Amino acid sequence: MVGNLLDPRTSIVRRHGMSFRTNSKGLKLDPQELLKAFGGLDVHQLEKLADQSVVDAAQFNRDMVVAIAQAAALLETTDFSFRKPLDGKIVVTAFFEASTRTRLSFESAVLRLDGKILSVPDGQVTGVKKGESLSDIGEMLNTYGDAVVMRHPETNSVDEISQNLTAPLINAGNGSGQHPTQALLDWYALLKWRPMLASDTCPDKSRIHLGVVGTPGSMRAVNSFVQLALLFDSAIKRITVVSEMADPLGAKLSDSTADCDIEIEVTNDIKDVLPALDVIYMNSIAFLGDDYKTLDSRYKLDMESKLKPEAVIMHPLARRNELDSALDNTVHNLYFAQAAGAVFVRQALLTAVLARTGALADALTSR
Amino acid sequence: MVGNLLDPRTSIVRRHGMSFRTNSKGLKLDPQELLKAFGGLDVHQLEKLADQSVVDAAQFNRDMVVAIAQAAALLETTDFSFRKPLDGKIVVTAFFEASTRTRLSFESAVLRLDGKILSVPDGQVTGVKKGESLSDIGEMLNTYGDAVVMRHPETNSVDEISQNLTAPLINAGNGSGQHPTQALLDWYALLKWRPMLASDTCPDKSRIHLGVVGTPGSMRAVNSFVQLALLFDSAIKRITVVSEMADPLGAKLSDSTADCDIEIEVTNDIKDVLPALDVIYMNSIAFLGDDYKTLDSRYKLDMESKLKPEAVIMHPLARRNELDSALDNTVHNLYFAQAAGAVFVRQALLTAVLARTGALADALTSR
Amino acid sequence: MVGNLLDPRTSIVRRHGMSFRTNSKGLKLDPQELLKAFGGLDVHQLEKLADQSVVDAAQFNRDMVVAIAQAAALLETTDFSFRKPLDGKIVVTAFFEASTRTRLSFESAVLRLDGKILSVPDGQVTGVKKGESLSDIGEMLNTYGDAVVMRHPETNSVDEISQNLTAPLINAGNGSGQHPTQALLDWYALLKWRPMLASDTCPDKSRIHLGVVGTPGSMRAVNSFVQLALLFDSAIKRITVVSEMADPLGAKLSDSTADCDIEIEVTNDIKDVLPALDVIYMNSIAFLGDDYKTLDSRYKLDMESKLKPEAVIMHPLARRNELDSALDNTVHNLYFAQAAGAVFVRQALLTAVLARTGALADALTSR
Repeated sequence: MVGNLLDPRTSIVRRHGMSFRTNSKGLKLDPQELLKAFGGLDVHQLEKLADQSVVDAAQFNRDMVVAIAQAAALLETTDFSFRKPLDGKIVVTAFFEASTRTRLSFESAVLRLDGKILSVPDGQVTGVKKGESLSDIGEMLNTYGDAVVMRHPETNSVDEISQNLTAPLINAGNGSGQHPTQALLDWYALLKWRPMLASDTCPDKSRIHLGVVGTPGSMRAVNSFVQLALLFDSAIKRITVVSEMADPLGAKLSDSTADCDIEIEVTNDIKDVLPALDVIYMNSIAFLGDDYKTLDSRYKLDMESKLKPEAVIMHPLARRNELDSALDNTVHNLYFAQAAGAVFVRQALLTAVLARTGALADALTSR
Repeated sequence: MVGNLLDPRTSIVRRHGMSFRTNSKGLKLDPQELLKAFGGLDVHQLEKLADQSVVDAAQFNRDMVVAIAQAAALLETTDFSFRKPLDGKIVVTAFFEASTRTRLSFESAVLRLDGKILSVPDGQVTGVKKGESLSDIGEMLNTYGDAVVMRHPETNSVDEISQNLTAPLINAGNGSGQHPTQALLDWYALLKWRPMLASDTCPDKSRIHLGVVGTPGSMRAVNSFVQLALLFDSAIKRITVVSEMADPLGAKLSDSTADCDIEIEVTNDIKDVLPALDVIYMNSIAFLGDDYKTLDSRYKLDMESKLKPEAVIMHPLARRNELDSALDNTVHNLYFAQAAGAVFVRQALLTAVLARTGALADALTSR
Repeated sequence: MVGNLLDPRTSIVRRHGMSFRTNSKGLKLDPQELLKAFGGLDVHQLEKLADQSVVDAAQFNRDMVVAIAQAAALLETTDFSFRKPLDGKIVVTAFFEASTRTRLSFESAVLRLDGKILSVPDGQVTGVKKGESLSDIGEMLNTYGDAVVMRHPETNSVDEISQNLTAPLINAGNGSGQHPTQALLDWYALLKWRPMLASDTCPDKSRIHLGVVGTPGSMRAVNSFVQLALLFDSAIKRITVVSEMADPLGAKLSDSTADCDIEIEVTNDIKDVLPALDVIYMNSIAFLGDDYKTLDSRYKLDMESKLKPEAVIMHPLARRNELDSALDNTVHNLYFAQAAGAVFVRQALLTAVLARTGALADALTSR
């Protein structure tokens, strides 16, 4: 069930006449098993996303998360170069908060599907400097592109730009709010690692104890990840949040957990709980108003950490000191596989939002 | 004659099998009437722009302005995706002064015509830092692209880069000088709103009283707009410039107005003249040497302003406080339509400058 | 043997149904003679670069330098638009040190070969701000693109990113280290100017005295240029380094020169040696740790400089005061031709590294 730790020197995978690079170190996951699971990809699920904005992890149900993950698996293992799914479509990447990792991931997804990009690599460069409102920026973008990917340091930015924007919006991180596409790619990695997590009848021995090191209430990636985790209650025994904060979940996520069967506990002691965890999700930085706070130095993982032999570590990256690079070359490293799957999940999402899932359906029938 | 105020929720127009987004609020203008007026588009007019630089509104005559507007109307209402007019052409967008609005507008135009982009989103990033001259930059760009779109904070930048640049240059704003493509898209909006403004025999009841709130002599967009307005003397009864400055027109524009039949007056009192105006053109910012100055707070338009029932407001955007967003949802809002037409005007111009008007001629015959 | 000083007004060359712009002033070099020399281009040489990184000028031998120059000559004189050599390939241009000149040169090369670009125009914008390591950035880029072009202010950046990067890396300048693609385009200009320089049997009258004004040990472009110059020992009589520094060559280059037949001398007096030089290579800026130092003001070339009538000046640009623009319109100006050939050399290199030399072979057979 666990992915293979391939020779790090062979990180180019050749399959069906195509070749692609995967992560250089850590677990290398084969998408085939996930693609075949649950009767295979249901493209009709994805059609529901046509012309829709993707702003909050809470808008997804489990079937949709699985469909996006399976579409990503299809895209990861199939040559789409002659299908050109996004031909003629323009995607605007509007990054008002700098992030090369996320911006390039979306842009690579667009280019690999033969779409086109209008890029705002550093939004301080915009009329914002001259005092332009986000709603006016939204109005402007209506006629420039077919979809807008936005990152913004303010949580209310999604609401503001949506006042006039009629093109679908993909939220690539808004302040301390949400980062739904990160959560989708996190779950793509988890479902490739153990497809059974998406089953209603996940056997008890496969159910996991999930540790979340960080503060979901002020870390948007962790927030969206936990939000999706709540959909997989048949596969998650328990979630332990490790944080020094008093109320790490925040009000909104606390409400969601109240309706959920998963047992949730909070601790500030990582040493105690670590040996029990199957999956550990970490993040570096918590947003606190205009400022940010790095993870407490007690919460560092390294070769001395008491991990279960098959435990996997996830991290949305970029990392700081909290995750020692000595762990990169171990079977605990799921975070590089997580990163390596990012482009495919964003390809799946863009194909769905831009109503071009026909290419996916065609690829399925010709397999 | 006036455009329809469509339901703001339906901002996608579908026509001839293509669909495009238009402005979300305000007047929505149909390009069809303009396209049919005056015997239709004369592509030969546009051929005169082949390999030519576009640096100053004063280089255009009325026939050329109308031809560019009609070409924009053709591009706005026709599916050009299979014609790929700019196939194989590379356009350099060199923005030494940041402007996402104008840069993305040009880049969207290039991409929609299947050209390619080399982007300099923030020219402080260039060798200028190391002391490189603009004439050396012009020499460099000769072999990188087929045309150069430049914005620069200094008025003499156009002359400097032109010393060695042999590729055609499109001036996207030079200091307090010119912004000719903004003026062309302003007139595209006005001619869609009332095509008769371009007629030699514009009936007296259709002739307009134009108000310009701002200082053309130190606002490049207003400067270029008024320069083109002087070509439409059969349609404009009077131009009233509202400014607190002593000589708002500046020397060059004053010379041009001296040769023109249009009555021009200057006032510093907006309240007095507002109820008489058919078209009000506003701008936010005047450049004063290295600094800029915002519009006087007396010159603010909002729901209390005494506007003629059919008066339209124009603004090149971005705006600050001078134009209240409460006006967005009224019939006075021509500024969103203005912005929505920007990409098509730049498409028309690039097609002409890069000598690819054949695609326009073909589209005309196959209509 | 010397190129023609063409009419500066006609800088568009039309040949074989294609047209391209060349430099506006100075020597205009015809690539045809180089292309035919030495039995013509041997494409098999280039195949050795497939999937290889290009990080140091020392990795090339003379045959490879000549093959790259001849491939550039083929690309400069042939219409490749229908061959689309880089179709489906994505090149990441990661500039952690700003350089519009080099970045746009690579990006133009990619676009002209119908590849796609992921651009990081100003790497301060990346997760580096958040403390991300270059090795993590390399891991990230593995799944985003097919090759990475990097510039970085630190010399050890090439080693750091290579820890996890499995895609081929092209070093576009690392601190005071290397700038191998600049050296290749320098030699492309020199070999177009005088193809015989690459011959084993270069007659004595064609052998050159090369002057290097600057400090190779702390100027990466000069360093790489001199490294390649050592390969052409049958054509170079002598190299005179003009520098105010005590040990201008640095340890590594001094080792290389020790094995070489070319006579190397160092002086701090340019006036004395200038009248003897056939080729003068200049640069502006030396990197000294975190800082940089401009060229000594004594080392300025202008119309008063005592140059041989046929002497040519080279400069990687951007320049400051050390090279007077009055020289631009003279036969001494090889630096504009150098710049004009840059895109073609980078096209040749990318075609080889991305294993698409088949397009070059096809073009050769159909000539």
